[in-house]
Amino acid sequence: MARAVIAIHGGAGAISRGQMSADKEQAYIRALSDIVGAGQEILAAGGSAIEAVTEAVRLLEECPLFNAGIGSVFTRDGTHEMDACVMDGATLNAGAVAGVRHLRNPVLAARLVLERSPHVLMIGDGAEAFAMQHGMTPVSPEIFSTEERRQQLLQAIGAQQVALDHSAPLDEADKLGTVGAVALDLAGNLAAATSTGGMTNKLPGRVGDSPLPGAGCYANNANVAVSCTGTGEVYIRAQAAYDIAALMEYRCLSLHQATERVIMEKIPTLGGDGGAIAVDREGNVALPFTTEGMYRAWAWVGDAPSVGIYRE
Amino acid sequence: MARAVIAIHGGAGAISRGQMSADKEQAYIRALSDIVGAGQEILAAGGSAIEAVTEAVRLLEECPLFNAGIGSVFTRDGTHEMDACVMDGATLNAGAVAGVRHLRNPVLAARLVLERSPHVLMIGDGAEAFAMQHGMTPVSPEIFSTEERRQQLLQAIGAQQVALDHSAPLDEADKLGTVGAVALDLAGNLAAATSTGGMTNKLPGRVGDSPLPGAGCYANNANVAVSCTGTGEVYIRAQAAYDIAALMEYRCLSLHQATERVIMEKIPTLGGDGGAIAVDREGNVALPFTTEGMYRAWAWVGDAPSVGIYRE
Repeated sequence: MARAVIAIHGGAGAISRGQMSADKEQAYIRALSDIVGAGQEILAAGGSAIEAVTEAVRLLEECPLFNAGIGSVFTRDGTHEMDACVMDGATLNAGAVAGVRHLRNPVLAARLVLERSPHVLMIGDGAEAFAMQHGMTPVSPEIFSTEERRQQLLQAIGAQQVALDHSAPLDEADKLGTVGAVALDLAGNLAAATSTGGMTNKLPGRVGDSPLPGAGCYANNANVAVSCTGTGEVYIRAQAAYDIAALMEYRCLSLHQATERVIMEKIPTLGGDGGAIAVDREGNVALPFTTEGMYRAWAWVGDAPSVGIYRE
Repeated sequence: MARAVIAIHGGAGAISRGQMSADKEQAYIRALSDIVGAGQEILAAGGSAIEAVTEAVRLLEECPLFNAGIGSVFTRDGTHEMDACVMDGATLNAGAVAGVRHLRNPVLAARLVLERSPHVLMIGDGAEAFAMQHGMTPVSPEIFSTEERRQQLLQAIGAQQVALDHSAPLDEADKLGTVGAVALDLAGNLAAATSTGGMTNKLPGRVGDSPLPGAGCYANNANVAVSCTGTGEVYIRAQAAYDIAALMEYRCLSLHQATERVIMEKIPTLGGDGGAIAVDREGNVALPFTTEGMYRAWAWVGDAPSVGIYRE
């Protein structure tokens, strides 16, 4: 029997101890701990990896602290455009949505695409129409808006900063752009899920790595489940999530060697930064990142959860 | 100096000699030959691989015989939604658009995303707005429509066939879903481009592998340029284009070994079929496919072009 485990992230970026109030830090720690605990319970009860990652990401979307679902950042036009992906390592089936604006939980729409359509990726109005045909209810876009994200947009617009250059982030928040979960269940199945509100002040229509299988999300029972967060364009060009799997499969690298190679070496060489969470078929966990911090938590079934924000 | 070469495809599918009139066959052969010749001339004059593949795909989009740009198939709603991607092996930069409806040449919009934005993938109205800000003119969607494609839609609707199952194509045409080009230039740079109108009677919002770097399009000077055509969902799940590169890079497979492994073995194992064209850094060309036929042509600089439709 495999050593069941779940890991989650709430984005990577310039998170410095100095700028974080004690209250806010506690709020993040509590949210991460609660959410990873919810995923852990699903696994402990014999639930599947895909159930556990879907529910963990749904809870991350529900939490306004993180840039996905409620709490999503604003586009340049003051709207929210969200993307999500789930992948089932047992079947290599994947489902994803991009550019959705009226679905409370994009990860549940991605799951519907996986389970109820022959397709992998659906975008925009077509994705929303599909989700509604399968029982989802449209919501008003205001539910995603939080005062903090609006201030970030006003700040960006006021400073005439546009998210045109990933190497010069307009503020700390524009990189905290993703949430995700990876899990190994008691039956030995791997799964991954990723969801995002994108970048503050982004051009409407821009899609990053989060909803793209192989870029920001990948799972294969043969080796690994991965969810990425960082400069999305670089993660797409590097095929970051699949590249970790390929290095394990074709080069026989360990989980730690493969994630280090991609996240700490290849992504920076292409001018990107960020992190990833990954779980292999033996239940090992890796959580590398090149930024100052990454909101993260992980928990083996039967153990107490671990939570991290900054570099150790 | 590298042996400069270009290869193009106009889709793979159930193309049988019996059902093709001599006139139609000649029209395909002439179009493929002319277009590969145009790309060959660019390379012979010292043009870059990215120029050659962009122009070849633009010409394939202009030709109503192929399902991309003019001649795109219809969605279930009688509209056209097109996707395209270009990738530059010298820089690993990529540009792509998905779900565009008013851009005559989606591949030129993808090229604009590559060259004039910090982004990789733009979708829908946002992609069109970006393209228009950079000088593209919107066109009426009717220009993409051809009588043959409309008949295919009516046939599909009349038979209440929906493209829900790739293993049971509604007719021959729904698989002829993509065009593409790969090239190696005299300076040793590789590039790839892919463009598509999708599947006849597809759900609006569905996106296949064509606009996704690593899935339907990939180029890296270190090893290979690839453009795919086939059951898009499977090509996404398999990360088909990048997987060919990974097998060459990490397993030291030859171009022919790597393309055979992915197109002839891994894709069918996942229930998919189709083909790919690929050129490696030494100027070798591979054009494998599992379907009855694949419209294809290839030409080394200084040699006469070769054209193929059926299995040899």
